[in-house]
This record gives sequence, structure tokens and C-alpha cells, in this order.
Amino acid sequence: MRLRLLSQANRLRLLQRQRWLATTSSTNLAQQQQQGERNESRGKRDYNGLVYGAATLAGIGAGFLLFNELDKPRSSNNIITTSTATVAPVPALDEEATARLWHTTKRNDLPVYSVDEVSKHNTAETGIWITYGLGVYDVSEFAPNHPGGDKIMMAAGSAIDPFWAIFQQHNTLEVLQLLEGFRIGNLPQLEAAPVEVEHDSPWSQEPKRHALLKPTSERPFNAEPPIAMLSEKFLTPNEYFYVRNHLPVPTLQPEDYELELEVEAGEGQKKLKLSFAEIKALPKHSVTAAIMCGGNRRSEMTKVKPVKGLSWGAGAVGNAKWSGARLCDVLRQLGVQPHEQLHVIFEGADLDPTSHPYGASIPLSKALDPRGDVLLAYEMNDQPLSRDHGFPIRVIVPGTVGARNVKWLTRIIVADHESDSHWQQNDYKGFSPSTDWDTVDFSKSLAIQSMPVTSAICSPMPEEHVKVDGDGFITARGYAWSGGGRRIVRVDLTSDGGKTWHVAELEQEDLPDGRHYGWSLWTARLPISAEQRQTQSVELWAKAVDSAYNVQPEAFEHIWNLRGVLANAYHKVKVKLV
Amino acid sequence: MRLRLLSQANRLRLLQRQRWLATTSSTNLAQQQQQGERNESRGKRDYNGLVYGAATLAGIGAGFLLFNELDKPRSSNNIITTSTATVAPVPALDEEATARLWHTTKRNDLPVYSVDEVSKHNTAETGIWITYGLGVYDVSEFAPNHPGGDKIMMAAGSAIDPFWAIFQQHNTLEVLQLLEGFRIGNLPQLEAAPVEVEHDSPWSQEPKRHALLKPTSERPFNAEPPIAMLSEKFLTPNEYFYVRNHLPVPTLQPEDYELELEVEAGEGQKKLKLSFAEIKALPKHSVTAAIMCGGNRRSEMTKVKPVKGLSWGAGAVGNAKWSGARLCDVLRQLGVQPHEQLHVIFEGADLDPTSHPYGASIPLSKALDPRGDVLLAYEMNDQPLSRDHGFPIRVIVPGTVGARNVKWLTRIIVADHESDSHWQQNDYKGFSPSTDWDTVDFSKSLAIQSMPVTSAICSPMPEEHVKVDGDGFITARGYAWSGGGRRIVRVDLTSDGGKTWHVAELEQEDLPDGRHYGWSLWTARLPISAEQRQTQSVELWAKAVDSAYNVQPEAFEHIWNLRGVLANAYHKVKVKLV
Repeated sequence: MRLRLLSQANRLRLLQRQRWLATTSSTNLAQQQQQGERNESRGKRDYNGLVYGAATLAGIGAGFLLFNELDKPRSSNNIITTSTATVAPVPALDEEATARLWHTTKRNDLPVYSVDEVSKHNTAETGIWITYGLGVYDVSEFAPNHPGGDKIMMAAGSAIDPFWAIFQQHNTLEVLQLLEGFRIGNLPQLEAAPVEVEHDSPWSQEPKRHALLKPTSERPFNAEPPIAMLSEKFLTPNEYFYVRNHLPVPTLQPEDYELELEVEAGEGQKKLKLSFAEIKALPKHSVTAAIMCGGNRRSEMTKVKPVKGLSWGAGAVGNAKWSGARLCDVLRQLGVQPHEQLHVIFEGADLDPTSHPYGASIPLSKALDPRGDVLLAYEMNDQPLSRDHGFPIRVIVPGTVGARNVKWLTRIIVADHESDSHWQQNDYKGFSPSTDWDTVDFSKSLAIQSMPVTSAICSPMPEEHVKVDGDGFITARGYAWSGGGRRIVRVDLTSDGGKTWHVAELEQEDLPDGRHYGWSLWTARLPISAEQRQTQSVELWAKAVDSAYNVQPEAFEHIWNLRGVLANAYHKVKVKLV
Repeated sequence: MRLRLLSQANRLRLLQRQRWLATTSSTNLAQQQQQGERNESRGKRDYNGLVYGAATLAGIGAGFLLFNELDKPRSSNNIITTSTATVAPVPALDEEATARLWHTTKRNDLPVYSVDEVSKHNTAETGIWITYGLGVYDVSEFAPNHPGGDKIMMAAGSAIDPFWAIFQQHNTLEVLQLLEGFRIGNLPQLEAAPVEVEHDSPWSQEPKRHALLKPTSERPFNAEPPIAMLSEKFLTPNEYFYVRNHLPVPTLQPEDYELELEVEAGEGQKKLKLSFAEIKALPKHSVTAAIMCGGNRRSEMTKVKPVKGLSWGAGAVGNAKWSGARLCDVLRQLGVQPHEQLHVIFEGADLDPTSHPYGASIPLSKALDPRGDVLLAYEMNDQPLSRDHGFPIRVIVPGTVGARNVKWLTRIIVADHESDSHWQQNDYKGFSPSTDWDTVDFSKSLAIQSMPVTSAICSPMPEEHVKVDGDGFITARGYAWSGGGRRIVRVDLTSDGGKTWHVAELEQEDLPDGRHYGWSLWTARLPISAEQRQTQSVELWAKAVDSAYNVQPEAFEHIWNLRGVLANAYHKVKVKLV
């Protein structure tokens, strides 16, 4: 078996290289990527994913094609104000079942709008349009003022389908009736077709993505979900877990998969190869760990002064249960001994145009520590890894910046130096606020490993209309996390600029400090003052404290850095009060 | 041998209890101490230690008693302006040797002032008096404007002797001549006698302390050195390493010493006793570790709103090389196995009036981790521990708040719960800024273990007169440290309120992250603007970054807590420019 797999990595490289040569010059992709990142286009959206989502839903609706050309002459007003349906034309279906078909049918009384046209209506100024199935709706009046409106706002200018697939509670008869009243047109069925793929491109094998993932870049694919989704579930569903790719997604087959291990420095057997089956045969270990991009919340830091990097919101993080073999077991099997000066280098099967793989490294001490919980993971939330998350094997380095959690893992080297990859040496490092591109010296700075404490308000979202409850409070929810296994011990919220702080309720695993790798979700009720009710506006701040009693810095000004990483200042969200 | 030592802990308790009963009611000392801490008297000084220092120096001067009644009729002006000495009355001694005797002689032309009277002159308003040997000097004119003046200011209202014993470079002919010119009187020789001790009191056995230690409380003894001393040496000299005692200092003899170990929960041999000799016979291990009080820099936090606790400056920290047996070796010898739910409880020989010992605990995971470097230490900077620092054995828990580094260690228990001591349960915990004494619930908060990142500017000191150099810069020095073995990776300084930041040069050990327990000293040159030169004033800020890229919070307002612990905001120091 080992003979058969011997040259797998080389074969992969050749294949990938052929693809690159077919479509790109041989310049370093890291440079290309940086160029791409420089062309930040905040607010830009790409609708390929959403179109795909709509197509899927249209497909689901195909069983009801008999209604496709159904003419339903109804006035909007009727629908909005009448809760007893008088419009259902098919007696065999009850009121709700009928309502559930409306968005799957073309309304011949209304015009057809392209996805592109819809996408232009995504703000209060342009009007807020959304699509649901084949329907196009102008929800400008509805969205800001009604229950469920906040969730609809997440889809402004695009499809609501993927949101409602998650937030089933908003998909009620009342809301469907309300929505149909706002219908202004139809999507052309043509546009619901899957995006055309380019063959013979390194990008030709990219996986399909969930419509909820909002891309910050398409090639390589990088995307985050709307953050309101994040505080809904303690374990982030795989389908909209943020994706951070640095290169095209490689295509690996478990039956061909081979992990090469090499001990370049220190004690231990010099070489070993493990097949996928051999890794799965090792004792299986599970750990809940949040993975966070080093650039999470960069878009907030950018407001102080521009930085280079993908303009992530606060959604470049997710929390999952990861399962696989423990790296410490594998290294012990090789006879590797503790050594303070050694590193473990990981290489992925994702290759740049010069056939260099994505690479990163961690200290050997972390890799060997049983409490470090480093995994050769093949499962994410009890499912096989998806291609975007490293199928069939990735390394999970709990508590450590996402960039070291190398996906499509093909090679592990125990060495007396860090990875010499671009991403370890010249990226993912912190600098003083006064360091600029003329003075920066990457060699002088520490590669980010353990991440600092942070938190985010997921709900309400910025500018969301929030109802003040009978007691004069609003409810906020979000996440908090710290690296290095440090448990979140407190999240403080304020609705009066820090004059009074309110301690949030935490949802977290009962795990000991130093090994608490999952995030904490939090909920807090915050008082609204008479003045705030009058101005209909309030700004909420969140700050978290970890088990080392480290706290978030207050503002971005003094933690600003030219790469926009480590953006962990207080999260501040202005909302409107109803 | 074990038989002989069997009841040592009990004997100690009996002895201590007898002492308490002799002088105090049997109320809980922790309460007394809190009461004491409530009576914060900022700026209050106790001169016992300094008198002792002066007495020592007077003793050294005794060899020159032939000069004791020497009359030296000199005008101040002569001394200040004449560098060729015309005043030396003894031809056999050269100019400098003569000058070195002046402060040891009584000047019959000048009055005698009590130590108490001198102590009232310690500010610009009252005039600044100091003593040196038998001399009393009014340095109000001198101190703020001359080289060496900053070091003299540390002794305002008290004796300069202990400072000059350290800062030998200031003890020059020029300065001595200058100083004698400011002489206004003599100390009564009577006052140079050692403080009378009360026998039969629990405090009767307190050790002598170095004059440089400025007490924040006398009973129990708590004291810190002037922080300008701290940045002078990478390893803080034992004699002025800050002292944090919670109870009277016990008197232990190595030949009677016995450490009881007990495994209450989990696997392992149930009981073991180790003599001092047996601990010294174990493999010796050394680690450089800074120990910091949980209340270090509390006096800065207090300015936002009062807190309860000793009013520490930034000197409740020191860095030393500790040597002893590794706790992990001892626990392994007992057969203790890793277990995430267990704790290691430490008890000291220092007892409260109810005979309860000082106690604290740490997680078993820290105690068992070879990288945790927890020591049963018997040496501090290659010297046997002093009594104030835990003679003959204390536990050193590197990276962990001082309170867990239990001194005079007599008992170790592996248990399924934390220490139930006051100091673990109802002290040394962090809270939200809005938690007050009416709402506080200590049981809901995490006992501090690993400390957050912090830094301090040691030099210049607040209000110090600093000379701007020819290039328009001033130099600042200080320390930075983070708990949990996290290395300091950067210290940023600003002299313009954060508009520009300057990265300091670091002096630190070359140790790997996660095991970097010593502090870092830093030096930075900071530009002074034309406007600052004109106003002769500048405020310096320091902030440190650790290897998890945690940063200090900017201000105390939002990290304020009712116990005044974890005071790690930016250190800000206003200085005067010359």
C-alpha cells in the first residue's frame, strides 16, 4: 500500500501545476492574493452562491410545477390585512400549504427582474428588495418594523431562502402572507441555473458553497456567514462555517490519501507514511474548538486607517466539534521527544503556481502536549470534513489562529525551524501601530499562534431596529473566545458608554482552564434610558475577560497594525429603538 | 526521623496560637487585615525600617568617631562652588575621604531634628529634607534640578543611605560636597537605635527588613521598593524584593522542617512526609520567574474610585532565579496521575488567630506539567530563602499570581476542590466594574491564577525632572510581564498621547513561549516636541504585548474592580523637562 501511495504528493503537485499553467502566469499566488486583498471593495457582494441557493430551492419547488403558471390576482392590501385566506385557488390544499407555494410560482401579473437588478436594492436609500424562490419582493416598508424583519435584512438585495432554511421560526403563515403582499416581480428561471464553471483552471474544482456564506473574496474563496447566525447555535453548522482558503481547493480521494511524516530534527523515527485508513484506525479523540481567522473583525480596524487584507466582519469564526487522531499519539509512535527548540511544520495539498504548498508550523511543545488536543481531524460536527474545510484530513490546533490549522494535510515535518512559508514568515504577525509598509520587518515579529481574548455582539446587528421590552430592556447575544485554551470567565455589556456594565449569561462547555478551546455564547439584557428611547438610538459595547483575566482593549486606534490582524477591541454596535 | 517530625505542624500551630492569644482577640485575622486595608493612608510612611538603615550606617561610621564632634565651620556656598577642598581639617585624609566622613559627624553649629520632624518635609510644599548618616539636609533647591536629584527624591522625608548603598554612582565627591552645603542639622544619635520589639506578640519574631522597602502595611508586613530600583537589575536583589505577607512571619528551622503530602482524591500514595534534607536531595531545578502581587498598581486604579486593599504602587513585583525540587517530580513519585478536575492545595506555616494556616491552590494540571516549572523552592537568586520570602521552603508557581506561591510551605494536598481558605475563596478574584460590595458574590468568580499582561515605566518617575538630550529625546526604562509563561513580544511607548508609538528594546531570557516566566526589562528613546519643551512637561505611556498578542487595556475606568486587583491598564507617567 505504501508503494502505491509513494508519490501521491508529487502527483498532486503536478496536476495542480498543470492547472495553474493553463490559466495563470507563474507569479507567486501569495502576491496575487495580496494584490487582490488590496483591492478591498467593502460592501461588494457576489451572488453566485446565492443564485446557487435559489436554484436549489427552485428545484425543491419543482414538484409543484403545476402551480408554476398559476395566476393569483391579489391586492397586496388584501394579503396583509386578511388573515383568513380567500385567495387560495386550489381547494385541496389548506391555507398554509398554499402560502408555502406562492414563492415557487411565477406571477404573470408582475415583471421579471434579473438577480443583478435585485442586488442594487440593498439599502434604505435604494429600497430593500429580496428574493424568495422565484419571487421578488420590495420589503423596504416591512423589514425595519416587523418581527422577522431583522433576519430579512440580512438578505437585502439577495435571496432570503438560505436564511429561512435556518430560521424556520420566521417562515410562518403570517410572514408568508405579509411577504407575498410585497411581491413586485419574478426572477427569470434562467438565472436560477448553476454558475458555469471554467474547466482546466485551478479554480475549476472549487466546491459548491452554501448561499449564506458572504464572500470577501472569490478566488481564493473566503466567506463568512451573517453574524446573527453565529449566536444561534453553540456548534456552528458546517454548511455556513466561515471559509478561509489561501489557494484553490485541491481534490483528494481518501483511497489515495497519504500523510507523510518526517523527523528532520530531534529524536524519533525518520519517516513514516500514514494512509487515511491508518489514521482512522488510531484512537479517535474529539474536541470542541473555535477556529478564528487572524483577520476576524478587520473591517472594524480598517475604519481607523486602511489595512491590507480581506475585509472580514466578525463572522470569520466558528465553533465545531472536531474528531480525529491525536497528533501527540502519532508523534509518540514516531519516538519524538519533548524539545523546546523544535517546531512541527504542516503542509497542505493546496499549491501555489510555483507548486509550493500552503504551509504553517506550531511549536513542538503544543503538538506533543496531550492537553494541547492537536488533532489530525477527519470529522467536523460528526460529519466527514467538507472539501472547503480540508477533506479528507486537516490539522486542528485548538486555541491557535486559523492559519495554523492546515487543511488538506499531506505532510508533517518535525524541524528545528518554523515553516518557511509566506504565511508563517510574512503574514499573520502583529506590529506596533506606527509600523508602516516602509518600516515593517516581518522577521522581527512573532508569528501569531495563540489568539487574544475577543467578543462580538451578533444580535442585534448594526442599525437593526430593536423593540424595547415592557421592562425597558433590550436583549443582546453574541460570542466570546480566547486562544490558548483560556476559558471566557465574563462578558460585560454596556448600553451607556461604560457608565454601567452588565454581566452576560454564558453558554459554554464545563471544561478546565487551559483546555477550554470552544467559544462561549452569551446573552444579556440591557436597560434603555428615557433619553435613548426618545432619540431611538443606543450603542452597545461588549468586552470579554478570559481565565488569565486578560481583557479586550477599548478601541482600535492603539492596536491598529498594517495587516489588520488581532482586531479584538470592544465590539460596538449602534442600533435603532422601536 | 519521621516520628520526630510527626507533629511539627501541630507544634507550630500551638506556638503561634499562644502568641496570638497573648496579644490579640481571637477575631479572624483576615477580617482584621481587611479592616487595616480599609484604613488606607496614601503617602503614609513608616520610618522604622529606614531608621534601622540609618543605624547600620551610623555603625559603619563608628570607626571614624574621632571626627564625631568635629567642628567644621563652612559656608554652604563655599562647599557648593569650590571643588578644591579648603575645608578638610585632617591633612592625612584626601579630599574625597574627608567628604565621605561629613555625614557621619555631628555638626555642632546646627540644630538636632527628630526623624519625625524630618518626615514632615517630603514634598515641594513642605520642603524636601533627607538624612544621610547623622546629617539632616534641606534639598528642596537641589533635588529637582541636578543629576542624582531623582534618586534623592525617592528618599524625600527620610534617609538616603539605603539608596546610595545601591546607586553608588550618585555617591560622588561632587554630590557629597553639594549635599553638605544643604546641611541644616543633625539627627539625634538616640533615634538611630533599632526599634524596640514586643516580645510574646505574634509579631515579635518579624525579621529585619531592608530600608529600601516602603511599607504599605506594617502588620502584616507588606512593602515594595521604589520602582526606579526595579529596572536597574534583571534579577531583583533579594533584599529589596517586594514582600507580601498575610500573617506574622513564622519561625521555621530546617532541621525540624517537615512537608506533609496527602493525596485526598485521585490516584497515588495517600501520604508522604519529606524533610528539608529529603527535598534538597531531589533533583535541583532552577527557573527565572517574576512574582507579582494581584494588587500591583492598585494605587492607580484607586484614583478612578476607591477600592479595598493595600495601596501598592508598581513595585509589588520582582524577578528572581528560584531553585528547588520540581513539584511534578514529587507528585509523580507519589503516583499522582493527570486529572482535569483535581487541585493541589498548599498550606503555609503562617497561622491566623484561629490557627488556620494561609492557604491557596492551583489546578493539578499546572502542578504536574513539567513545562509548568512549579518548584518546592529553597533558593532565591542562589541564596537560601530569607524568612520574609518563605524560609526554608516555599512553592513557586511561575506565571501565577503571587498569592498562590505559598511561603513557609508545610502541607500539600491533592484534592477534588480548591483551597477553602479566605484568600482563595473570598479574595484575589476579578469582578465587573459595576459589581459593588452590596452585589458581590465571590463564589461566582474565578480565583486568579495566570496573570494578564502588564508593564510599568520605572524611570523616569512621576514628576521627575528629566533632561532632554542633544537629539531631542529622553530615555525611559521599565519592566513588562505576562502570566502563564507568555513571553513579552513588544513594548510600545508614546510621548504624544498615542499618536506615534515607539518600540522598546527588550532585555529578556531566550526561552520558549509558554515557559517564559521571567519578566522583560525595556528601554526606549522618546522624542520630545518643541511644544513639550516649551511647557516643560510630557506624559509617557507604556503598553506591552504578550505572545498571545494580548494587550493592556488603555485605562482603569472599565477594568475597575472592588478589590483593586488586576490593575494592568497602560502605565502613564507625567514628567518635567529640563
